[in-house]
Amino acid sequence: MRLAELSKRSGVSTASIKHYLRAGLLPPGRRIGSTTAEYDDSHVHRLRLIRALIHVGRLPVATVREVLRHVDDDSLSRAIRMGAALWALPQVPEPDPEDEAVIAARDEVHRLLDAVGWTTAQELSSLSPTHRALVAALATLLRLGYPLDAELLVPYAELMHQVAVRDLDSVEAHPTDEEKTEMVVAGALLFDPVLQALLRLAREEEAVRRYGL
Amino acid sequence: MRLAELSKRSGVSTASIKHYLRAGLLPPGRRIGSTTAEYDDSHVHRLRLIRALIHVGRLPVATVREVLRHVDDDSLSRAIRMGAALWALPQVPEPDPEDEAVIAARDEVHRLLDAVGWTTAQELSSLSPTHRALVAALATLLRLGYPLDAELLVPYAELMHQVAVRDLDSVEAHPTDEEKTEMVVAGALLFDPVLQALLRLAREEEAVRRYGL
Repeated sequence: MRLAELSKRSGVSTASIKHYLRAGLLPPGRRIGSTTAEYDDSHVHRLRLIRALIHVGRLPVATVREVLRHVDDDSLSRAIRMGAALWALPQVPEPDPEDEAVIAARDEVHRLLDAVGWTTAQELSSLSPTHRALVAALATLLRLGYPLDAELLVPYAELMHQVAVRDLDSVEAHPTDEEKTEMVVAGALLFDPVLQALLRLAREEEAVRRYGL
Repeated sequence: MRLAELSKRSGVSTASIKHYLRAGLLPPGRRIGSTTAEYDDSHVHRLRLIRALIHVGRLPVATVREVLRHVDDDSLSRAIRMGAALWALPQVPEPDPEDEAVIAARDEVHRLLDAVGWTTAQELSSLSPTHRALVAALATLLRLGYPLDAELLVPYAELMHQVAVRDLDSVEAHPTDEEKTEMVVAGALLFDPVLQALLRLAREEEAVRRYGL
């Protein structure tokens, strides 16, 4: 398809598409003349992801480029490719390793991962920004006087694992590793707010079932 | 306990405690002299919640006062009291009701709530900011070209309901309605980030289990 059609199908203006081409976020189309190029479905879904990263993730162009570099990196194994693209999203800062609450929280996370048998999460603990986010969230609870221990978290971790299995099942439905990685990134930005709203609605429903209106 | 002890037990400076007393966020202690007052455990847990609202929720004092007014409102039934306190937290703005994506998203939410039998959520749909947040999140997905239909969301809603049941079970452990409502508010601010981090960690674990490192 030509530029005008790509703009129509993606809902992105031709001016923005040209900007993304110049910024290296969108791969060039196949040249079919001195001033025209032909685009395909891969451009449509790449534009979809770029819009999600910029308009929902509010990422600067340099970060978008970094995320897309991993999405496009054929040399990576599938899990590393997904992980690298996700880890390039903005993350919580490293918590102070000397802080008492952080030390205690890290310890609880260690016990939790042991209890649920998440061996990879345990092995990657010093690298993963996701692990760091969990430690930081638990340290905040602890610091504010609401301590949570590993035993209490085990059933929650198991429910979240069921959600993760379902997410990856739907990611599998996409044919290439590139598209799978795109869906993983879009999911973290767009689907997580849906889940959070569902959970809050479930709490309202359950409170009324228990206590009446 | 006296002010100094309250400060020590709550981790809040005496200057901040005096500020919260003057601002009407913390109920006064029992007067036991012209310049001294006696505080109890209810002051300790109220300070814990105030700290969570101000430091994690980043709420302005007027909003904190509004949330606490509902926490303290004995005239409300338990579910309404919890709901009112939660709804006083900052919420997503009302989405444009004429917007096509919003109309389609509201329709999918309606079908979802029917399918899972959440009748209260359905009845409160025009009032609840939680319902509005779900519609807004689905409308964003739709607008960006990642439509989600009700059927796909049903199993997720059921998993989130299991999480909600567990949350309310632990809220029940607190003796008074006031403390129960405090825990519901603290949970929304502090526990939801723990769940999100757990889900992201579960996805990393599951990706490596499926695809290797």
